[in-house]
Amino acid sequence: MLTVALPKGALLEDSIRLLQDVGLDFSAFNDPKNRALQIVDPTGQARGLLVRALDVPVYVAYGQAQMGIVGYDVLREKKPNVADLADLKFGYCRLSVAVKSDSGYQRSLDLPAHARVASKFVQCALHHFHELDLPVEIVPLYGSVELGPITGMSEAIVDLVSTGRTLRENGLVEVDLLFESTAHLIANPLSYRLNQGNLADYCQAIREKLAVKTSELMNS
Amino acid sequence: MLTVALPKGALLEDSIRLLQDVGLDFSAFNDPKNRALQIVDPTGQARGLLVRALDVPVYVAYGQAQMGIVGYDVLREKKPNVADLADLKFGYCRLSVAVKSDSGYQRSLDLPAHARVASKFVQCALHHFHELDLPVEIVPLYGSVELGPITGMSEAIVDLVSTGRTLRENGLVEVDLLFESTAHLIANPLSYRLNQGNLADYCQAIREKLAVKTSELMNS
Repeated sequence: MLTVALPKGALLEDSIRLLQDVGLDFSAFNDPKNRALQIVDPTGQARGLLVRALDVPVYVAYGQAQMGIVGYDVLREKKPNVADLADLKFGYCRLSVAVKSDSGYQRSLDLPAHARVASKFVQCALHHFHELDLPVEIVPLYGSVELGPITGMSEAIVDLVSTGRTLRENGLVEVDLLFESTAHLIANPLSYRLNQGNLADYCQAIREKLAVKTSELMNS
Repeated sequence: MLTVALPKGALLEDSIRLLQDVGLDFSAFNDPKNRALQIVDPTGQARGLLVRALDVPVYVAYGQAQMGIVGYDVLREKKPNVADLADLKFGYCRLSVAVKSDSGYQRSLDLPAHARVASKFVQCALHHFHELDLPVEIVPLYGSVELGPITGMSEAIVDLVSTGRTLRENGLVEVDLLFESTAHLIANPLSYRLNQGNLADYCQAIREKLAVKTSELMNS
């Protein structure tokens, strides 16, 4: 049986809708009273696993799920051993460098030598500043990264931005963009090769749905 | 001004109560409508920072908060550069090895060679199995670690247990205890040495309150 790993949080609703479009119904995960982390689709064709976004590629890499949906930001930060099959075009956000709006810094290169940068995306942040030949100290945080500059712990942050509301509310402003992120369809490489649980057929059906949506958008 | 880092989540209520006992009122963080991550105590003596439990020692190590409250489990896993000043005796839990109850494993050493162990506490888990000379593969997860054995991804987990309800509900059983954990009072080492913001006086007052409570318990 095909097992699909779905991410808790912001990407869940659109993920469930996409899988419904190809005949897999995991809408029970939408029920706020649901406590189960594993459910079988009513047709009995597939099992859904509801896990943290960061854990989706772990289940897929280990082959416990053959397919999964996860943000591109997680793929960039964790570099898991999974096949990245399609950009699903929902869940848009971007990983950006932000500073206090009254700091005067206009771009990453304006930061002082050996500045402190708070981030949940340690690898992506290191890579960005390394490419600029700007040595900085990354302060790894797990939440509320915007507190870094507010408390004076760091000159900048590298964080996900979607509407920009959190930045504005905290007097911060974006000065550089590392990359844009959307939800991606991923698969276990070996499962994909062996077409376990008709994985390739589901992937193909998802790609076709996406192509239809894209052409509808272009013609509208 | 003294800045105190408080942990979101299970330890927050008791942390606020303890600080009230020594004259610092951060009860505004208890208000579910509160969105502020920084508040000043009504007496104007101290500032409270509300952050993720894992971030408390980061703010304290960097000196952005001089004092903080955090679980001993976080200190063991992250080994931050902070002074561990007192066991606050609340927030009890333990870090344990658990396996499926029908697996037949009675202790860590029964696990098969190169077993997989899922955990959020990668360093603690590695240390435990290293001490036993039992090479295992740690699968790092961020949430719902109990899914590891259920999906067959891992033979065991290393996870925090408080009541044991989650384990029982998922057909898992504890087989080894790594350590017990409670909330600890921590301080920035330099701030403590320099007695910034009367840090040492607050620590002394907290220790005295704890001593009174302990003797009350012993005499009751």
